[in-house]
Parts: sequence; structure tokens; C-alpha cells
Amino acid sequence: MKIGVIGLGYWGPNLVRNFLALKDVTKVTACDQKEERLTNIKEKFPSVELTGSSDHLLRGDSDAIVIATPVDTHYIFARKALENGKHVWVEKPFTSTSEEAEELLNIAEKNNLRIFVDHTFIYNGSVKKMKELVEKGELGNILYFDSTRINLGLFQRDVNVVWDLAPHDLSIMMYLLNHYKVKAISTSGIANYNGKENLAHINVFFDNNCFAHFHVNWLSPVKMRLMIVGGDKKMLVYDDMQNFEKIKVYDSGIDYKSAESIYEALVQYRIGDMFSPKINQTEALTLAAKEFIASINENRNPLTSGIEGLEIVKILEACDKSIKKMGELVELNTPVYY
Amino acid sequence: MKIGVIGLGYWGPNLVRNFLALKDVTKVTACDQKEERLTNIKEKFPSVELTGSSDHLLRGDSDAIVIATPVDTHYIFARKALENGKHVWVEKPFTSTSEEAEELLNIAEKNNLRIFVDHTFIYNGSVKKMKELVEKGELGNILYFDSTRINLGLFQRDVNVVWDLAPHDLSIMMYLLNHYKVKAISTSGIANYNGKENLAHINVFFDNNCFAHFHVNWLSPVKMRLMIVGGDKKMLVYDDMQNFEKIKVYDSGIDYKSAESIYEALVQYRIGDMFSPKINQTEALTLAAKEFIASINENRNPLTSGIEGLEIVKILEACDKSIKKMGELVELNTPVYY
Amino acid sequence: MKIGVIGLGYWGPNLVRNFLALKDVTKVTACDQKEERLTNIKEKFPSVELTGSSDHLLRGDSDAIVIATPVDTHYIFARKALENGKHVWVEKPFTSTSEEAEELLNIAEKNNLRIFVDHTFIYNGSVKKMKELVEKGELGNILYFDSTRINLGLFQRDVNVVWDLAPHDLSIMMYLLNHYKVKAISTSGIANYNGKENLAHINVFFDNNCFAHFHVNWLSPVKMRLMIVGGDKKMLVYDDMQNFEKIKVYDSGIDYKSAESIYEALVQYRIGDMFSPKINQTEALTLAAKEFIASINENRNPLTSGIEGLEIVKILEACDKSIKKMGELVELNTPVYY
Amino acid sequence: MKIGVIGLGYWGPNLVRNFLALKDVTKVTACDQKEERLTNIKEKFPSVELTGSSDHLLRGDSDAIVIATPVDTHYIFARKALENGKHVWVEKPFTSTSEEAEELLNIAEKNNLRIFVDHTFIYNGSVKKMKELVEKGELGNILYFDSTRINLGLFQRDVNVVWDLAPHDLSIMMYLLNHYKVKAISTSGIANYNGKENLAHINVFFDNNCFAHFHVNWLSPVKMRLMIVGGDKKMLVYDDMQNFEKIKVYDSGIDYKSAESIYEALVQYRIGDMFSPKINQTEALTLAAKEFIASINENRNPLTSGIEGLEIVKILEACDKSIKKMGELVELNTPVYY
Repeated sequence: MKIGVIGLGYWGPNLVRNFLALKDVTKVTACDQKEERLTNIKEKFPSVELTGSSDHLLRGDSDAIVIATPVDTHYIFARKALENGKHVWVEKPFTSTSEEAEELLNIAEKNNLRIFVDHTFIYNGSVKKMKELVEKGELGNILYFDSTRINLGLFQRDVNVVWDLAPHDLSIMMYLLNHYKVKAISTSGIANYNGKENLAHINVFFDNNCFAHFHVNWLSPVKMRLMIVGGDKKMLVYDDMQNFEKIKVYDSGIDYKSAESIYEALVQYRIGDMFSPKINQTEALTLAAKEFIASINENRNPLTSGIEGLEIVKILEACDKSIKKMGELVELNTPVYY
Repeated sequence: MKIGVIGLGYWGPNLVRNFLALKDVTKVTACDQKEERLTNIKEKFPSVELTGSSDHLLRGDSDAIVIATPVDTHYIFARKALENGKHVWVEKPFTSTSEEAEELLNIAEKNNLRIFVDHTFIYNGSVKKMKELVEKGELGNILYFDSTRINLGLFQRDVNVVWDLAPHDLSIMMYLLNHYKVKAISTSGIANYNGKENLAHINVFFDNNCFAHFHVNWLSPVKMRLMIVGGDKKMLVYDDMQNFEKIKVYDSGIDYKSAESIYEALVQYRIGDMFSPKINQTEALTLAAKEFIASINENRNPLTSGIEGLEIVKILEACDKSIKKMGELVELNTPVYY
Repeated sequence: MKIGVIGLGYWGPNLVRNFLALKDVTKVTACDQKEERLTNIKEKFPSVELTGSSDHLLRGDSDAIVIATPVDTHYIFARKALENGKHVWVEKPFTSTSEEAEELLNIAEKNNLRIFVDHTFIYNGSVKKMKELVEKGELGNILYFDSTRINLGLFQRDVNVVWDLAPHDLSIMMYLLNHYKVKAISTSGIANYNGKENLAHINVFFDNNCFAHFHVNWLSPVKMRLMIVGGDKKMLVYDDMQNFEKIKVYDSGIDYKSAESIYEALVQYRIGDMFSPKINQTEALTLAAKEFIASINENRNPLTSGIEGLEIVKILEACDKSIKKMGELVELNTPVYY
Repeated sequence: MKIGVIGLGYWGPNLVRNFLALKDVTKVTACDQKEERLTNIKEKFPSVELTGSSDHLLRGDSDAIVIATPVDTHYIFARKALENGKHVWVEKPFTSTSEEAEELLNIAEKNNLRIFVDHTFIYNGSVKKMKELVEKGELGNILYFDSTRINLGLFQRDVNVVWDLAPHDLSIMMYLLNHYKVKAISTSGIANYNGKENLAHINVFFDNNCFAHFHVNWLSPVKMRLMIVGGDKKMLVYDDMQNFEKIKVYDSGIDYKSAESIYEALVQYRIGDMFSPKINQTEALTLAAKEFIASINENRNPLTSGIEGLEIVKILEACDKSIKKMGELVELNTPVYY
């Protein structure tokens, strides 16, 4: 299989490195407009073919195109690739609008091509372990999902903090809670500098009374990557800033026995053992690249396909709509396919 | 000065202990309907006079009445005390409704009596230090305020988690940001058991683009008491779960120079030293009790008077209104007097 | 049972409180030379009988005497109490010399009286849990024991940091490793101020190749209470500075298969799950007081008797001998009876 | 300048990468007996010249030879390099014996060549900051130095844990305390598997009453990299496991006023602010490589020369001598030249 990579900024070189390392991949071509980025790739990965022209790449002999450019160019590059009969890998978020995403999905379906959206965290060992615990029913019914992703982060010029950071956590939430339907969303935040929000709080309402919340922030003095998943049997904390013991499962909660009057109801606290499972350390991007190749070889949708990518974009659009109206509720009717 | 304490549950004995220790206080009378609570006080504080009748206490010789009963009884006890010419101390939140609070304020003013609302955190060494730093302009303009107060907490039967936990953090916010005007509020959350919300997220919008957020939760496997105050000069973290170094001031932030196009704007990151100031360890409740006595002796409003208590109640009412409508925005016009 | 307590300084009031709360205890008499300490007890515990004379107490009607005075007075008070037919509870360390300890043990045996030495940590929930794990063979054979107990601590005037802090950790070690024989000891440290060592490192050699180390320090900017117990099956960390998750059991270690040449030996690393068991929160001193009373009622040695107290004193004497000679090895032949 | 690197195991590729990146370096030749390691270098750094023969390399055109092979081969490779007129860089520890080290120093001096010993930590931003603070007198006189470097580490087959881990911390101690003379040393530990100690405690006595202690351990369930430097003015903690705030300076300590009797002596505790300075993030190995090149160009000893390397080897030899006799004191007379 031959792979072409467009966009060699922050993430592109990692993509080149991972695809180069796959046995199925016989050739990697890399493309960027900036000369220095090409030179940089040349030095590190001398076997990679280079080009400064995306047209050249998109018309070339690559079987699949990996798009790691700014969000607003995803659609145009992906469409050309699909129209040229090539499978595509698109960085998150999938596209700038849901219309773009839907159009790409249609073209791919018509041409029987694969679209992979790089929600890398779905391939992360900690997230896989959380999924396993949720699937086994270890936590019981999920009552809430709470996520904090904050640090002194690079202000993006083209998107706000929601489009930059929330796709990670939204994709994890949808992966873990794939039986739950999102019903509505609201988002509040502020833009302190350039009109793009740099801090936001997203609330997600599900149709079964489950509730999710996301705090994303580019202007925090401390770095936090913290998720709490509250189940009615056990509760879980995923702290990605820890070097070890990233996942902790608490046998804690309350036992509630309702009664005629709430004053007679029996609430009992349960604080039990804590358990921190061993986590698979394989680099998530390696597993993601393998899944992409496998989905092509097996002629099937990848785990993180354009369908999931579209759902995330719909939520991001809803966030933007809500945040402009100080958190007004936006209804959604999201089917999730993970 | 003679002090009468009504309500000897969780917090009452702390109040008895602190008032007993004050030089100005010559007598403490304590009141509860439950015999075992009176016995308990008798054993620990033999000099305290006891009564099972609140009427007896409210008509007795106490100069001031300290009310540590469930929220929905605050108003009735406080009104009787004021009508009997006694100053009152009321636990937080002040009252169940803003009408009740306003009526109490009117009676107190008419009778020239003091109302103290026990927002204890305002007397805490860490909070005093934060106030000092904000006042000195150490942080610059405050861009945002973020608070997390979560743990596996006692489900209250009479109020939801907002009325139980948020008064602490709302009072700290109002104390720190007393020049800023709250403009509107929204609150989202869920009630998983008895119809009272056990998890909530509160957003507060100010008229100067500052933004505050509060996460309160009775159903978290981990205990967190974390505040971030983001200024345009420096940023501060207050982690009350640390045994030491509760306050950290970060000389970090961004320097933003706007330009015609946002793509030309200059954003520079600044990560500098961190500083953790020494904190005064005096028990907050001791300082609160002294302030109450001083306000009576000096015939002036205490630092945390009924006026501030009323403002908090207005915000809590707005939270309730919003949470019932899935986070609908509720406008406020809050003058703050700290 | 009637209890007399001598010494009402830092720890004495806790002893009074705990004995008062026991059902078997019908009377507590407390004794100190300082008037203000007696007044303080009077206020907090009005039912306690007070005296300023230790002779009065030691000749009085108490069945047992609790000694919480400076170390160098333990022997004289304990001897008088035993000679007057009273059981004794002595704070740690038991005595200033092993001769004193042996003499007290002889008198107690002759008079069929109990000696309890207050190694409180043996009654602590975390230590009980460690003991349970070691007994069950969860850790396998113990290869090493490492303890750090450091902080900016009160300089004692009568003893050095070894006699002040190490008894806690030595008693825990002996409790956990009661099948292992201590063979020799060495101790190094420094005295920066008053000739009493304020920092020391103690090495303990066992006859089965197990090794223990203790760091005690009154001059540390940070407070640490950390133990590592390395077994050949699993390893355990006890961090007493954590508010939660004090005990963590790691399914980690190495699997070693020896071979003719060490270069052929197979060393495999095993990093597995971590588990943090729920800990009983009952106050250790309450359980200690109950054990003392039970040992008297049942006419048997308590769990922490004078015999264990003597062994600790022998180790402390060996430490002093070693530290004066810059860590010279001192042989011991310690039978342990826990 | 042309650089030859012998030994492409764990650390060698980092050396290749760093020397390649230096402007002064025009050619890097790399050497290893294992074919796969050469292939690996070829892939990552295609401009590097490769050879399987150390003789070839040592007789080649390199101006300096970088030796990253097992310790017991350092001497033979370094001697040949020096005899062939080449400067040498040797990984830590410098040599297996002090005689070897001294011989190499003699040859280098005779031939006017540089010997650099790779005590990389001396070039680390945190250590540089500590040095700066000590030099400025911020901490006052250093009373003690305490270091913990433990984890579940790779058992080395050729050396024990002291030779593997302690050179890092010993070199930091000597760098910080370069005015202090080491007087004697003792070391205790155990070998649980292959006869090489896997856990050791090193005590270092200075001639001015300062004291240092080092805990090194290959068999710990938790990873710790912790140093405490206790000064009589301030105290410092360096926690290298923290992602941020690695260095903390505490304005804490005691003020001691001696008196005729120690019972009258005045000991006052001082707990003040804490300060965490910004740390330079430049990779230490980059700065080390630059220092090596600069020392050659400027015809001067590098900061970490063979002289310092020899002093560390002398201490390691003393540790080995002591550990075999259960911690017997070994006197040293170490001049330090940093």
C-alpha cells in the first residue's frame, strides 16, 4: 500500500513515522508548501518521497491520502482524494461543517472508499481499558461523564478551543456511551483575545438522564487531563497527567432505597477498595494506522470512520450555535455507531 | 455578651466551642429538640446552659442568636430573634427565598440589629490571601474564575447540591470579584435519586466579559476542592485538598498583540516562576465569631452580612430556575457590597 | 476499672479522652505538676478527678497507671506503680535503657501485672492491613523494608531524633516481620544544633538477608511518612501523608531464573495491576486502650507488651552506640514475640 | 570536528543524534558489533558513517571518540583513543577502577588531550538552577544532602546498583558542594538475586559536619527521583518525577539560640513562603556535547572532566569496599575540582 501525507506541521511527522513503520506500507510520499518542513522530513526519514504540490500528490500513485492540514482545508483535499479513487485519513475534527462531512461520506460510499477520522484517543490503552470496564458492566449504568482538558495552550487562529480540544473528549464519551443517545447540548464560554473562545464549558444531555460535561481551556496555569465516569455500581477516574496509575476504579457510591417520603429514604454510602489496572502502552497512533490499513484491506468501516467524525462535527456546530447565545440549549438527535 | 445557639447537629457544636472561647462572651445557651445532642454538649462543654425549647431560648436573655438549623427554618427563627431585639447569626445559605432574606434585612434595619451570615470561607487564611493578591493587582484583571467542589457527599434531604455546596464558592467569588457585576446565570445538572440535583454546573456571566464556572457534585469518587483564578497578568490555583502549598501563584499567561488580521496577531506564551505564599492557619470560624461580636460592639455591618447573604440567595434561586429548564439563561442585576 | 494518667502534655489529653470513653472504665484520675494543664483537662473533661501529686496518684485507688511523661521518668513512675500493684501503660519508647525495661518486666511478672507499651501504630488501620497482607503471603518473602519519617519537627530536648521518631517505624517493622531475626544494626547521622542528632539513617540486617532502612529527620522542609515493603511476589507502599489510598499493593517485581553464568540468567520484569484496599478508620488509640483493658481482664500479655517495648529499646541503644562511631556495626540477637 | 561513537545500545543513539546536530561537527562515525544496531542507526541517521570494527574507528580520522560501551571496556577503548591522539568522551562511570582512571588522565595530560566524563545531570536545567541557588548563598550553609533514586530498574549484569545509579547523584552532590571535602563513606545494601547489590544506602561524611545520604534501588514498585538539600537558611526539594515545579525552595527551618543549658535554648520554627523557579528546558545532553566541543576548541578542561570522573570512581570503590563489610567506614580524602 502506498500512502501520501499532506501537511507536515505539528502532527504530520508523527503520521509519516507511523505509516513508514507498517509492513503493509511500501511507500510514503509527504507534501507541504513549506520548504523547511520537507527538509526536516528528508533528514529524519530519508526513504520518504517529497513534494511541494498537493495536486501532484492527490493525482499520484498513493492508495490512500492522510490529511493533516488546517480544518478548513480538510474538505477540499478529502474530496479530491476520494474523487481520485483514494481512501482518506483526516485529522480531527473531520470537517468545518456537517454538510461537508455528509458530502464526503456520500462520495466515499459511491466509490466504495474508506474514510478514517483520526480520533486517536480511541486507540489509547487507557481509553481501551475504560471501554472494556464499561462494556463488562463493571461500573453499572453510567450516571455522568465529566472531563477537564485545560492548560496554557497554543491559541489556534482558525478555530476556537471547542473545535481544538473537545473532539478528543467527545469522541471518548461517544465511544464509552455508545448505547446512549445525545438529546441536547449547551455551551458557555469566553473569548478574551481574538474573538475565538479560549475557555468553554459544554453540557451534554442524554435521553436517559445521563449527563456529560466538558471543560476546555487554553488559558490555565496548570495542565489537567481528567475524566470522571460515575456509574451506579462503581466510579472511575482517568488522570492522563499521571505517569503511572492513570485509571483508577473506585468501589464507591451510594445505595439508595426510595420510600414514600424522601425523609424516610435510605441512603447508604459505600467506600470500598480501589483498583488500578495495568494499561497497554502501545502508541495509540500505531494502532490507529493499523486499523486504517485493516479497514481498507477488509473492505469495511474503520472503528473511527467518517460517520463518527460527522457526529462529532454536529456536536461542535451545536456548541458554536449555543456559545454565541450564552449557552442556549440546542437540540440534537444523534445516532451513534461505534 | 450572651449567646444562644439553636441547632446542635453537625455544625452547632463547633459554633458553641468557638463562642465559648471568646472573651466577650459571658454565657452560651444551646438548644435542640434531640435529647442526645443536648447530652453530648453537656459532656463536652459543661458550662453551657441547655434548653429543649427554641421559644424559651428566643425569649431568654441572650443578646444574639446563632441559627444552625435546616435552611427552611432560618427565616422563622431569625424573625423571632430580631423581633425580640436580638442580633442574629445564620448559617449559609441565609434563607430559602430572597423575599425572606429581604424581610429579615428590613426588620434588622428597623430595630438597628446585626445580621451575620456564616460564609465561613471568607475568614479562611487561603481565601484572605487570595483577596490580598487580587486587591494588590497581582493577577491583573480577572478573566475567569473556575471552581470544583466534589466528593462522595452526604445527600441532603431538604436542598439540592447547589444550595448545599455552591454558597461556599459563590461567596468566595463575590468576595474576590466585588467590583464585577453579575449579569446572568445558567445552571445544568441531574438528579439521579430523589429528585434533588446531586450534580450541577453553574455558569456566571459578568458585565465585563469575566466568566465564572462552578462544579458541585455529591457523587464523585474523589474529593476535589479546586479553584483557578485566571488573571491577565498572573494566574492562581487554590487547592484546598493539599495539606501544604494550598495557594500557588503562576507567573504564566499570554501576551497578545492584536493586529489587522488575526493571522498577524502576536501571541506569546509566558511561563515563569511559581510562588506559594505562607497562609495564616487561624481557624476561620474563630475569626468569623470575632467579626460578629465586633460588628455588634461597633454598631456596623459585619463583613458577611445579610446583604451578601441575600445576593447569594438570589443567585441560588436563579440556579434553581435555570436548572429546571436545562440551563436556560436567567438574568440578574446583582450589586455586591463586600 | 479505674485509670490514673500521669503527664498531661501533648499526648496525655488524648489518653484521658480515650479511656473516659471506654465502658469498662469507671473513673479517670489525671495528674500533672502544671496547674494550667489540670485546668485545661477540667474544662474539657469535667468528670475527671485531678491531682498535682504523682505520689498521691500512684498510691491511690487506680487499677492501672498510664504514664505519658518524658522518657527518663518512665522507669521511676512505672516501678512505683507496679510495686503498688497497679498495671501500667507506658508511652513509647518504653524506657531510657534496656536494664530499666528488664527490671520493670521482672517486677511485673513477679506481681502478675500487665505492662503495655504504647506503640500506637500497631493499632492503626493501615498497619493492620499491611500485617494482614504479609500474613496471607500476598507479598511473598519480604526482601526489604524502607521507611521515611521526616518533617520540620519539634526538636526534643531530652532525646535525639532516633528515640523520638524511630520507635514508630521499628515497631511496625517488627510487627510485620515477626518471623525474621534482627542480626545487626548501624546508624549514621548528624547533630546540627544541640548535640542531639536531628537526622539519622538506620540500617537493620536480618539473619535471612532481608534488609531494613529508616530515615528519621527533624529538619526536612517537606513532611513524608512513607514505607515501602518489597516482597518477592508483590510490593507495597504505605504513604501516610495521603488522605486516601494510603496503602497500595503493586503486582510488580522481577522473575529471576539463575543460570550457570549471570550473563545467561533470565531476568523478567513484571508490571501489573495496583490495588488499594479499604482501610479501617477507627482511631488507633481507641483500639490500643481496649487492648490494654482486655489484656488485664484476660490476664494475658497485650499485643504491645513490655517485651516488645524492650526489644525496641535494645535497638535504640544499638543505634546510639553506632551513631557515635559513624555507623559502626552493632550486633544484636533479638528474639521478637509479636 | 569529526566524532566517532563506540557503542550503540541504549544511550549511543542519543549521543549520535546530539553530535550530529552540532554545527562544529562535520562527520559522525558510529561503531557497534551488532549488525541490527548499525541498521537502526542507518535508518534514523542516514548521514552517519558506520563500522563494525572498533579498531577501524579508533585508527580512523575522528578527532574525538565517544565511548558508550559497558564500564569494564571504558579503559581499553579510551586508552587506545588517547594513544591515537584523539580526545575522549566516556559514559559514566568513568572506569572500573581508580588506577585505570589515573592512567588515562596521565596519558591525556602527556598528549594534551581532553577527557570528558558524561555526568549528564550537571548540564540539566534543574541542577543548574540548584547550583545557582547554592552559589548565591540562598540556602546558607548546607547541613545535609539527601537523594532517593529508586524504581523497578533494569538489573545490570556487569555492575551493581551503586555503580549504575549513584554516579548521577554523587556528581550532583559534588557539583553543588564543591567547597566541602568528603572525609569518609559507608554503604549498606543487599543482593537478592545474582550477587550484585540491587539496593544500597550510601552515607557520606564531610569534614565540616555536613552529611549526605543516597538511596539507590532497582527493586522498588514506585519510581522516585527526589533530592532534599537542607541549608541553615532555606531548604530545597528537587523532585524530578514532577512534570512541572521540579525545584521548590522553602523559606523554612529553625532558628536556634544556644544557651547555658539545652533546656533554656531557644528553638524557633520558621515556616514561610515557597518558591518554584522557572527551569531551562534545553536537553542536558545537547549542552554536554557543546561543552565537550568547546573544551577541545579552547584547549581547557571540560566542566565534567576525567578529574571529576576519577573522584566519583574513588567513591564508588569505597562503596564497594564498605558494602562487602556491612557498612564499615572507609576514609577518603577527596579533593573536588568542579
